[in-house]
Amino acid sequence: MRRKDREIIDVEEIEDIMKQALICNVAMCRDSQPYLVTMNFGFDEKYIYLHSAAEGLKIDILKENPLVCISFVQDAQFVPSLIPCESTMKYKSVVAFGRAEFITERDEKQKALAYIIKHYYRQVDEKRLIFSEYDQEKYMVLKVKIERISGKKC
Amino acid sequence: MRRKDREIIDVEEIEDIMKQALICNVAMCRDSQPYLVTMNFGFDEKYIYLHSAAEGLKIDILKENPLVCISFVQDAQFVPSLIPCESTMKYKSVVAFGRAEFITERDEKQKALAYIIKHYYRQVDEKRLIFSEYDQEKYMVLKVKIERISGKKC
Repeated sequence: MRRKDREIIDVEEIEDIMKQALICNVAMCRDSQPYLVTMNFGFDEKYIYLHSAAEGLKIDILKENPLVCISFVQDAQFVPSLIPCESTMKYKSVVAFGRAEFITERDEKQKALAYIIKHYYRQVDEKRLIFSEYDQEKYMVLKVKIERISGKKC
Repeated sequence: MRRKDREIIDVEEIEDIMKQALICNVAMCRDSQPYLVTMNFGFDEKYIYLHSAAEGLKIDILKENPLVCISFVQDAQFVPSLIPCESTMKYKSVVAFGRAEFITERDEKQKALAYIIKHYYRQVDEKRLIFSEYDQEKYMVLKVKIERISGKKC
């Protein structure tokens, strides 16, 4: 990061930004062409878990090149000034780099799904949830081992 | 787009999502490595205008490979269900593809900056703004000709 004064190094603060995020932006490449999708996610200390339909362009790309860059953005706010060059954007963001792997093993898939569900259902008692059989054919679950992660505060 | 039922084809609706967005996510590639940054922007019918410090990793990458994929996301909301598999995310997004060009000519740069300012100062009478001399050395302005654009509503 060029601006060291904006870097977030506190792990809890990085986790907090990810916890608050409802979506993440996942960038990938085929040949030299970047591609960007919005996805649901869950995470633990080591992995980001993604959930997707079993087919589509992103799946085709990730099978060829699993490298991803994932961002999470919190609280984007514009702070205007009557001098436009002095106006600023206020936001916090996290960027993670890793390699997407398709989870094929059923137990591992269930565990990954549990992290995604936990991310979206923090306020709900898990016992109240009704789990139907997961459609293994229709959906894919991916895990991205976090190789590098950094936070930024503007 | 795989799910045609989610596609937004109305140009005004696409523009509206971009108008409401405070930031955009810009994906780029070096070799096979994707990279993702959050940026301020402005736009007209043909171009997306981006504003950046004159140095940094994104500038280095874009000089090597100008291909970008830019996304704008509006109103992400989680709609829970006690049956987790039936929960959904509600959001609107726009994804644009193009090629970033560095604007070097002073007049063109001022015009591009005007689109960025217009995007953030819609509520403010332009006459009230105080324009200081733009620091040509410190900042860069880029334009991305929109080659492909599509909207999605979940």
